[in-house]
Amino acid sequence: SRSIRLAVIPGDGIGQEVVAQGLKVLTAVLPEDVKLETKEYDLGAKRWHRTGETLPDEELASLKEHDAILLGAIGDPTVPSGVLERGLLLKLRFAFDHFVNLRPSKLFPNTATPLAGRPDIDFVVVREGTEGPYTGNGGSLRTGTPAEVATEVSVNTAYGVERVVRDAYERANARPRKKLTLVHKNNVLVYAGHMWKNIFDTVGQEYPEVTTDYLHVDAATIFLVTQPERFDVIVTDNLFGDILTDLAAAVTGGIGLAASGNINPTGAFPSMFEPVHGSAPDIAGTGKADPTATILSVALLLRHLGHEEQAARIETEVAADLEARGDAPRTTDEIGDALAARVAG
Amino acid sequence: SRSIRLAVIPGDGIGQEVVAQGLKVLTAVLPEDVKLETKEYDLGAKRWHRTGETLPDEELASLKEHDAILLGAIGDPTVPSGVLERGLLLKLRFAFDHFVNLRPSKLFPNTATPLAGRPDIDFVVVREGTEGPYTGNGGSLRTGTPAEVATEVSVNTAYGVERVVRDAYERANARPRKKLTLVHKNNVLVYAGHMWKNIFDTVGQEYPEVTTDYLHVDAATIFLVTQPERFDVIVTDNLFGDILTDLAAAVTGGIGLAASGNINPTGAFPSMFEPVHGSAPDIAGTGKADPTATILSVALLLRHLGHEEQAARIETEVAADLEARGDAPRTTDEIGDALAARVAG
Ligand SMILES: CC(C)[C@H](C(=O)O)[C@@H](O)C(=O)O
Ligand SMILES: CC(C)[C@H](C(=O)O)[C@@H](O)C(=O)O
Repeated sequence: SRSIRLAVIPGDGIGQEVVAQGLKVLTAVLPEDVKLETKEYDLGAKRWHRTGETLPDEELASLKEHDAILLGAIGDPTVPSGVLERGLLLKLRFAFDHFVNLRPSKLFPNTATPLAGRPDIDFVVVREGTEGPYTGNGGSLRTGTPAEVATEVSVNTAYGVERVVRDAYERANARPRKKLTLVHKNNVLVYAGHMWKNIFDTVGQEYPEVTTDYLHVDAATIFLVTQPERFDVIVTDNLFGDILTDLAAAVTGGIGLAASGNINPTGAFPSMFEPVHGSAPDIAGTGKADPTATILSVALLLRHLGHEEQAARIETEVAADLEARGDAPRTTDEIGDALAARVAG
Repeated sequence: SRSIRLAVIPGDGIGQEVVAQGLKVLTAVLPEDVKLETKEYDLGAKRWHRTGETLPDEELASLKEHDAILLGAIGDPTVPSGVLERGLLLKLRFAFDHFVNLRPSKLFPNTATPLAGRPDIDFVVVREGTEGPYTGNGGSLRTGTPAEVATEVSVNTAYGVERVVRDAYERANARPRKKLTLVHKNNVLVYAGHMWKNIFDTVGQEYPEVTTDYLHVDAATIFLVTQPERFDVIVTDNLFGDILTDLAAAVTGGIGLAASGNINPTGAFPSMFEPVHGSAPDIAGTGKADPTATILSVALLLRHLGHEEQAARIETEVAADLEARGDAPRTTDEIGDALAARVAG
């Protein structure tokens, strides 16, 4: 398509700063004949303090009229934990049925991994995005008393698991190594775990070229630090995916480089792209935030909208920029400017 | 007490081999006037294949008549995932109300951590052992059909959280750094997460000398690989504890050294000590299994029964043995013999 209607939610803390750089690079990389229309939304902590709203219906409806959403970060220490996460971020993921939460992990050149020996890391996590322990099912009885009982219900459907597992097989099948690992905990969470494993095995029969593997989530964390090169595509539940992708970001040089896409592959709703990192209120306003994760999320956004050439160019230039950088720290703006200049090239 | 009635469950795979070494070292370290009576239980995969039983009531009653239990490992590829885990291992933890699952992590000398720069790691995870997503609550509807729904319910009570949080404060208060970190995910699992955090804060008022901290589980995995030295005592839920302690074992030189105690601090039931690793069927019978995790679990067992001097001696000699070892690989037996000789010293 020759135009992109982009909704922008800068959000809280460094969200504002990194989104500005993402837009800078997006503008620079787009061919002249692709028209970019952006609309910014005032959502997040400030809005909540002012109006008590997290995501009103009109704004949800307005967001829906876009091709994609670029989000910075949500969350602030002045807002009770969960209010913005559940009321805004997760509400968007659920309302727009973002069932594929895509999180690539790659060890770029010249980046500081905590792992000795610099293993060769290049895998992608396909995290389920609309079910599991994230559904908000649960409750608390006799809250705040010594007799309190609190529950959290992980809800899993064959419908929801099959579609994300199938997406993961497609992705694995399209990669050179064609390897797919299911991560769950089916020796303890036997109901959900066995359903995931059965569907994983059944769908796998349609992909005879894909090599499969199963790991319990605890064992998967071990391999992520001792043999990360063994992974190609990982498919997993919403909560396990949350945990594994932060760990994956840490072993591949840090959360400053980890991109993500909350994708609805059917196109029924706009997909949403955001860095894996949070709002980092401690460094907001200092110019220390690394916008690279957001810029790589813009690459995922472009790929999703069919602009593969531009997506690949951003990824190549991020690698080249990291390779070429000196020892001196750069500001958020400087990194954004350098990458905008490179991709415009 | 001048006698120890010990129940022994070698279990499956390498469980048999490592438990033999654990008993060897236990016998060697005990003073002559402490009588050790052991009773071995035939539980695990073989028993299940023969009789279909995982843990009959008579055996549970008989196990109860002991001061402690030493367990090797449970699990075998010939048994459906979950059958032995739920029917034997978790059944023991729940029946004997092992609400403190204690898992120390220490980077011993001369061990191979995957982390660059060898950070100074010495923390202990207090994992809740009787609640959370491990309760077996949940179910599946229309199993095996495209309309299946599977749920897993995490059950959390103020009663259960308060007692394990208090235990963790006591442990933190007794350590030089006096630092306690709560790990949960209270921005998403708001019912259970807020209950944990409220109880953590309330109990904390009784321990003014303990410095506290809260981390979401995803962020905690990042710090475990980038700054593990920041942790002293961690208290967390059953599932998060499972995940974090495998990761902790990996960063401290491997699962071959990770010990654990399933403890009932009230003494109402025998506590159970086991290595964190599993039955490793791929190396069973090869003599490659490292019995050190079991031997360190014996140290936890001795400490729990009041034999602090003997417990400390095992830990000191494990460190000395690792320091002194050469490059040649040693068999299970050789490591057990070396440690038995050292602690008898
Ligand atoms: C902020 C939080 C709700 C979110 C999640 O748990 O999904 C974040 O950790 C992430 O990974 O995008
Ligand atoms: C075998 C399994 C049930 C067990 C658990 O999940 O607790 C194991 O992983 C552990 O950590 O002891």
